[in-house]
Amino acid sequence: MAGRSRDMATMRDVAQRAGVSLATVSFAINKTKPVAPSTRERIEAAMLELNYKPNAIARALASRRTRIIALLFPVLEHNLDGTALKFFTSAAAEAQRRGYNLILWPSGTDAARIDQLVHSGLIDGVVVMEVYLHDERVERLRELGIPFTLIGRTAEPRGISYVDVNFEGLVATAMHHLRELGHRRIGIVFGEGGDPLISEYGPVVRTRDAYLAAIADTEDEPLMFSCDQSSAAGRRLVPDILRQAPDISALLLLNEHAASGIVSGLRAQGIGVPESVSVVGLGSSIEVAEAIDPQISLYESPSEELGRRGVEDLIDVLEGTRSAPGASLVDCVFVDFGSIAPAHS
Amino acid sequence: MAGRSRDMATMRDVAQRAGVSLATVSFAINKTKPVAPSTRERIEAAMLELNYKPNAIARALASRRTRIIALLFPVLEHNLDGTALKFFTSAAAEAQRRGYNLILWPSGTDAARIDQLVHSGLIDGVVVMEVYLHDERVERLRELGIPFTLIGRTAEPRGISYVDVNFEGLVATAMHHLRELGHRRIGIVFGEGGDPLISEYGPVVRTRDAYLAAIADTEDEPLMFSCDQSSAAGRRLVPDILRQAPDISALLLLNEHAASGIVSGLRAQGIGVPESVSVVGLGSSIEVAEAIDPQISLYESPSEELGRRGVEDLIDVLEGTRSAPGASLVDCVFVDFGSIAPAHS
Repeated sequence: MAGRSRDMATMRDVAQRAGVSLATVSFAINKTKPVAPSTRERIEAAMLELNYKPNAIARALASRRTRIIALLFPVLEHNLDGTALKFFTSAAAEAQRRGYNLILWPSGTDAARIDQLVHSGLIDGVVVMEVYLHDERVERLRELGIPFTLIGRTAEPRGISYVDVNFEGLVATAMHHLRELGHRRIGIVFGEGGDPLISEYGPVVRTRDAYLAAIADTEDEPLMFSCDQSSAAGRRLVPDILRQAPDISALLLLNEHAASGIVSGLRAQGIGVPESVSVVGLGSSIEVAEAIDPQISLYESPSEELGRRGVEDLIDVLEGTRSAPGASLVDCVFVDFGSIAPAHS
Repeated sequence: MAGRSRDMATMRDVAQRAGVSLATVSFAINKTKPVAPSTRERIEAAMLELNYKPNAIARALASRRTRIIALLFPVLEHNLDGTALKFFTSAAAEAQRRGYNLILWPSGTDAARIDQLVHSGLIDGVVVMEVYLHDERVERLRELGIPFTLIGRTAEPRGISYVDVNFEGLVATAMHHLRELGHRRIGIVFGEGGDPLISEYGPVVRTRDAYLAAIADTEDEPLMFSCDQSSAAGRRLVPDILRQAPDISALLLLNEHAASGIVSGLRAQGIGVPESVSVVGLGSSIEVAEAIDPQISLYESPSEELGRRGVEDLIDVLEGTRSAPGASLVDCVFVDFGSIAPAHS
């Protein structure tokens, strides 16, 4: 405690300097009772003069709680997009609202940097983003015994707190919508690109399985495609799609960055959207869909809600207001930009 | 220190359990000397069993340094975009590389939440994003005497550590490029949308002033437009542009989200890019420019470098390896997607 005895001001010093009681300083700092604005100003001025750093650290040592949580995000595995930005900002806002601080912690998909984070003793809990079906990070967090929640979920998420998109419901709804309009040749486009684990990435696998399940109920043939996550790759994919399925009448896109290229690739072949082919984005963001010409109807990812609830659930666990792990699936909301039309018979 | 005496394991407990010397535990934890992998494993196992939380908190209290820095970002003032995402991820990666933790701290453009952050005693310093010319947050950080750096800069940044885009050079270069190709009717489109302070936002003001300066050197007339930050708004703006300047031959876009709408609005009027009008993005992101049809050449924002250097400069200040405030302007890099052509004479 050398630092403290050396030159760290105490709350008592602040009270003296401000000419108020110790209790008043405590009320002002901890916001436990209202304090007149002019008094608060005097106290804050005294705190500044004395370079008084009140509470977080000492309180953390005393309570063994730091009120810091970490948001784990993967570096470079695949393109982070507008969805990730909304996770970051909504998670940070929710943490702040609850009186917590959110640390952004880059990690690989492996567990390498998790021990460093947890062993620092700095954090009370972890929110994991971009979850894989078999995720080393989740295994390691479990072993370390630190509270955590997932935005996403593993293959067997029982006993783990998570909030995820309802991908199964999303695909079933989208397929139903298209079939009602007479579509039978419905393809789906996934994203690739730099991530060898993409086939282990929850959203991709769950969407693919749900698509195959919806197809299996019919006599139709699955039409699955994938390309890099870029507009140029989407454009290059179009001839392949048309070669394999010249009579394709609808496309589901789980590759936001390729969407504009696919639409312009279709146009380049004289195929209009939605006159000849209906197109719909799955779990994408409205900003991207809105910027495509023509605009693409989409099932919008509930990104802000996911970020917010990931943090909310974790804090509930930390504060003991939740006993069982929360397991929530959130629906995407359909936004109609007119890119879906009845099939030609 | 009740928590500690109650049940917090000590480093000595860990040494005993792992069957190694206290010094070896210290070497392993503080990475001051190499420790054999098998020994390290034994020590880590002992730390887990004893739930030993080593160092960050106690060290912070002793050293009065937490090795935590905050990235201040504004909520909802105007659309955060791909640029902001890159600030977040590159800033977090750089902090981690230097052994620091980065907290994401949402704040308004006012100083309201800064005192809360600084008074918590949790952070060593602050990186401020999305800086306004007269920025209350910067004023308040200065008053509080906490080290900070800016990504962006105020009107009078002398004495402040900052890293910013070289907007002045960017506009001069772009204007020169277009004039060399014979363009004389060069317009510029700014973004609006929800932010009453947009006219105080550094990138907008500096770009506008540089545009006016470049125009003032000639006999040309300034052609300035603005619209909301969306594709739909860009599309709606096109008729206004053509009414005001039917002979316009080039457009600079400082409104990334409107770019696709402007291009498709031009096409809807039978005006081809670049055959009739050249278009170039200023400080935008390659992902957006690449997704437009046709793709738009751009001066790409050096977002990753800005995020990384904002953190780097701050840590240099904190560690005393930098004496004077760093003041850096970073150039955008031109990426040619073929949307610029010679002017028709």
